[in-house]
Order: sequence, then structure tokens, then C-alpha cells
Amino acid sequence: MQTELSKQLGVEHAVFGFTPFPAVAAAISRAGGFGVLGAVRYTAPDELERDLDWIEAHVDGRPYGLDVVMPARRVEGVTEADVEAMIPEGHRRFVRETLAKYGVPELAEGEASGWRITGWMEQVARRQLDVALGYPIRLLANALGSPPADVVARAHDRGVLVAALAGSARHARKHREAGIDVVVAQGYEAGGHTGEIASMVLTPEVVDAVDPLPVLAAGGIGSGRQIAAALALGAQGVWLGSLWLTTTEADLHSPALTRKLLDAGSGDTVRSRALTGKPARQLRTEWTDAWDDPHGPGTLPMPLQGLLVAEAVSRIQKYEIDPLLGTPVGQIVGRMNDVRSVRAVFDDLTRGFEQAVDRVNRIAGRSGQ
Amino acid sequence: MQTELSKQLGVEHAVFGFTPFPAVAAAISRAGGFGVLGAVRYTAPDELERDLDWIEAHVDGRPYGLDVVMPARRVEGVTEADVEAMIPEGHRRFVRETLAKYGVPELAEGEASGWRITGWMEQVARRQLDVALGYPIRLLANALGSPPADVVARAHDRGVLVAALAGSARHARKHREAGIDVVVAQGYEAGGHTGEIASMVLTPEVVDAVDPLPVLAAGGIGSGRQIAAALALGAQGVWLGSLWLTTTEADLHSPALTRKLLDAGSGDTVRSRALTGKPARQLRTEWTDAWDDPHGPGTLPMPLQGLLVAEAVSRIQKYEIDPLLGTPVGQIVGRMNDVRSVRAVFDDLTRGFEQAVDRVNRIAGRSGQ
Repeated sequence: MQTELSKQLGVEHAVFGFTPFPAVAAAISRAGGFGVLGAVRYTAPDELERDLDWIEAHVDGRPYGLDVVMPARRVEGVTEADVEAMIPEGHRRFVRETLAKYGVPELAEGEASGWRITGWMEQVARRQLDVALGYPIRLLANALGSPPADVVARAHDRGVLVAALAGSARHARKHREAGIDVVVAQGYEAGGHTGEIASMVLTPEVVDAVDPLPVLAAGGIGSGRQIAAALALGAQGVWLGSLWLTTTEADLHSPALTRKLLDAGSGDTVRSRALTGKPARQLRTEWTDAWDDPHGPGTLPMPLQGLLVAEAVSRIQKYEIDPLLGTPVGQIVGRMNDVRSVRAVFDDLTRGFEQAVDRVNRIAGRSGQ
Repeated sequence: MQTELSKQLGVEHAVFGFTPFPAVAAAISRAGGFGVLGAVRYTAPDELERDLDWIEAHVDGRPYGLDVVMPARRVEGVTEADVEAMIPEGHRRFVRETLAKYGVPELAEGEASGWRITGWMEQVARRQLDVALGYPIRLLANALGSPPADVVARAHDRGVLVAALAGSARHARKHREAGIDVVVAQGYEAGGHTGEIASMVLTPEVVDAVDPLPVLAAGGIGSGRQIAAALALGAQGVWLGSLWLTTTEADLHSPALTRKLLDAGSGDTVRSRALTGKPARQLRTEWTDAWDDPHGPGTLPMPLQGLLVAEAVSRIQKYEIDPLLGTPVGQIVGRMNDVRSVRAVFDDLTRGFEQAVDRVNRIAGRSGQ
């Protein structure tokens, strides 16, 4: 499965796997794809360094990349405390009351919240970047908007391609103007932050909008059939995130959450502002319902919502409070029904792709080919 | 573009075109596809007879089908007047006030509303069916749920295949249990009534759920690339509705509406209950905004909402009140940018399909084929 982009990056298959877990990223690259480590959870540079060292030691020399969250507009001198001060007391009370209603225990004294809003702030993303550019990463992806011009320039100086996610053709054209090399077209069905245009419509629209830049299709892809579909739509590869969450190498730290993912159907996700303040697809839970309830206080804008709920989300995850327990995941969760190794998942993708190509050739009357 | 289903129906290409316009249906069949006439607007059997006669005279002996709206559960003895009586006065006032706000003129004395809720009622659908089974239709599609068992039996007695739309795998399995022959998987991005699962995820899910029944992919399809994608996903054909609205043969009776369709982008539709009481994708307008406004009265359940707004919609269409003027259409509207003949559109689809197959073969390393 070779496109110009996969050749340029030196990978066997044009399958890009986004994951917060170093072991998954390395396994994707070893399997012949391109592993991309999500850096948002690394607030301490030495932790990122430790995990990139681990990847280097386990990737067998295969190429890999890093995904950061870096806003194009710089907000000077704003601290987490400044942002904290902007959160209304009524919203804090709603968090306390909802947690109390479900009997969610407190974290232990001095125990850090596992997920920190600071990962979303530019100064942290820049420290991540300083670390990452010391490693032979081949691709730097930015999850929200185009990265700042100096970051694009630094990456290019080191021969690192820059990718950015887009949910519309307009958004994609802005990336091209910002000097981005690869656009990830993130369809409505995708996990995490996403727009309202579904992949079937979005992928070719973005392909045509930024031609000749390469486009990766994201959203709704978890089988070889879907990879073949995305490539037929004009993508130069696919970008898969959700599918790896239930692999052996993933480290969710929560058997209850893994079971929820295995049990969920394609209709069990919701596009909600509950997690960050911007619409992001995730498992639908009583927690997302509470935030999406028109009779509740509603969500706050990014980055306030993320800061507001960070500690609560950590508590829900740590104590595995079932009705509230969720995670960002796409509609493809309906097909994540067993725990398998990254290699087994990857081999299914490539085998399924070949079968889908056979099928389309038969329909097109090229069955002898 | 040949699948088992297209061979069974005797068509050259597995492209099914749904349309309310006889001239479009006939042109699709003449071009090598399978035209399906939407019957919901025919409240008088003789009008349907007249239009089916016209199709017979213009289809050059090619196969075609009919789409009705027939509920599986029969509601005995309910008249339109009974339904009218269930509409709250506050909702009627909201319609009057909204129309007055935009200065929408009244219809002339005795002038019929162009769109009647009665087309959605079973007794009308049965009269349509009695007429249709007198013609050599090859497929009978039902837009909402499985048709009643006796209707399926009558169709099968005459060698007519029965198709039904589904927005989920569960829904599709119910169709199979009801003896349906063909399932149309209607993705989130589709125009008209639709669920929340996007085509990229829905199509393979439905294919696997009803295997070996044939599945047609609907939603987001308006180019050869998208046809190739749908077939890669496992569909035995595609079901296109929106794309024909801006063809030369379409008869929207409204230059303003045609212009709105040509100008709209993929982000200019909304999934709203404004038209019928069930979620249906349509152009987003100030009319849909008024019904979707949390500070408004909200919509009524089907069939009350359709009956409530029928006359208003006719007035908005007749007088082309621009900010309120809309129509059911899918996200593919972003690619409907000029008025062309059905033949020209169809030829683009088949040519684009061949190019997409070439592209996928190159990526799969089968370029010599």
C-alpha cells in the first residue's frame, strides 16, 4: 500500500497510527505503518524524553512521528492560575455535585491529576517540541489549527514534515497557506475534536482544496475495506487513532474502560464539548449527558472546560466509576470487539485492503487483473 | 460497474438514482443506471398513473423502480382531520408569526398546498402501490421502516424486489427479518431522514449485519471516487438522491432554490426535525433555525410536524422567500455547482469510478493491471 507520501517517509504501508502509548506507536512502525505518539499528556519534558528513548530502542530503525497541541496564536504570559480564575463558581459546584451524586472518591493527598490542561498550552507544547526535535522524528502533527510559523520553519530545517488536522476545506486551505506539508482530513465520525462533515464528503473535498498536498483520511477507519475506500476518495494514506485503544500494547490503566470500549456499538459515541469545550467525539456516558443536558449549566469554552474537569476526569478514571467512565473514541468503536496485538490488527488491515481491492476490480470488470 | 444486484436487475451500472421527478428517473435508467421515482408527493392515483405512463414511454425499455413511504404498523381509521386536531394552538401561532415576520404571502383561494402529509399515510401509500404494481417496476423501496408483510408478499408475487432504508445495523436486521431483499444503508451525511452513523462506518456494518443480502450505500455519494469507496466498503451499489436536484431534467419550480443548492457548501445543511418531526438532513435556513431554536416551541412528532408546516412550506416555496427556502439535501450539496443533464452527470460518475479504481490499483501495486 504505497503512495507518494508513504514512499517519502520510507514506510511500507500508508497507514498512520496516532496513539498516546509509546509501545503502540513503536509496534505500528515495526508492523510497516507510521506510528505517531500523542504528546499532549507529557507536561514534564523528561517524561517525553524517557518515552522517546524507549521508542528509539524499540522501533527497529523504522520512521515515526509526534503529535502536539499548539495554538497558532500565542497568548503571552497567561498562566494556569489566570485561566483557573475565569471559571464560574456555579460550574465548579456542578462538578462537585455530579461527582458526589455518583460517590466518586477524592484523589489521595498530593496525588497528581493524570490529565493536565497544561499539555494544551503553548509553552508546554514548545518544550515538547524542543525535546522531540532532538530525536529523528519524521513528522510533526498539530491537532488544533496550524502551528506557528517559526515552528513550521524549525521542523522544515530538520527535514521533518508538518501535518495538521482539518475538518473543512476552508480549514485545510489555511493550513496550506501556513506552509503545512500534510493535511489530516478529520471526518465527523472520528474520535476526538471533529467537525460535522463526514469522511465520505470531507476527504475528496480536502484533497481537491489543497491539491497537490497529500491528505490523510481520518474518521471511521478501522478495516482494510475502509482503507481502500479512503484511498479511492483520493487520500494518500489513512490516519487511525481509535482502533489501537483495545490493542494488547495499549495501556489504558482501566479494565472497566477497556470493557466499555469492547462492548460499545457505533451508536454509543457522542460529539460533546464536555471534555475540552470544543466538540470532540467520545463514548457517551452519564458524564457527557450531564454536560449536554439543556437544563444543566452547559460547558465552558476551551481551555476553561478542560481545566474545570481535569481533576474530576482523573478521579472517574482512577476509581473506574462505570456510568461516568469514558474516553475520546470514534464511531469505529463498534468494530473494536476484542483485544489483539498491534501486529494482528495491522495484518488484518493490510489483508482486508487487498480483499477490498480485489472486490472493486471484480465489480469494475477487471477481475483478470 | 456490475454487481450481483445490478445483474439481477439488468442494469449496466450499479447506480440507483432516487428522485421525485419522472424525467430524472427515466434519464437515469436510460443512462445505464436504475431510476427510482419517489411517490410521496402523489396523493391522487391518477397523477401517479400519468407519470408512470410517461416513464414507460421514455425509459426505452430499461428497468426502473418506485419509492413509497409506508409504515409497517397500521393505524386504523385515522384521518388527516384527526391528526390536525392533535396540533397545539401555540405551534400554529408560531407558524403564523414566523411567516408574518418574513412577509410570506397567503396561497390563493382554493390553491392546494403542494406538499401534503397524506402522502405519508398508509392508505395513500397503498393506493400508490395498487397503481404501481400495474406497471413493470422491478424494485419497490420503502423510505421509513419495513413495509407490511402483505405488501412484501404482493411485490414478491410479481417478481418485484423490495428495498428498505436503514440507519443502523439493528434496523437493517429487522428489515431482513421482514423479508426485505435489498437494504439501503443511509448514512448521517445523506439528505432526508437519516441517523447519526456516517457512511464510512455504517455501510460495512450493515453489509455484515444482513449478509448475504445486497446493500446499497446512500449518503455522501456524488462522484465516481465516492462510488468506488462505497463499493470497497462492501456495497453492491450506490443510492444517490441529492445529486439529481440540480440536473437539467429536475423540476424544482424555483430558480431561487436551484441557486441556493448550487451555492451551498457541504457545511450548509442541518439534520433537523423541522420538516417532518423526525431528523432529516436539509439546507439550513432561518426556517430550520426557528424550529431548532431552544427558545422556540420546538418541533412536534411525526406526523404532526409535517401536517403543521405543509401549507407554510408551500407558501415559502411558491413565493421563493429566500431566507426560509430550503429542501432536503445531503452534504454532497457542496459539489453540486452547475446545472447539467442527467447523462452528463452520469457519465462523470462512471468515468470518475474508473479513475478511482486505477488509482487504488496503483497504490496497491497492481498498476500493470
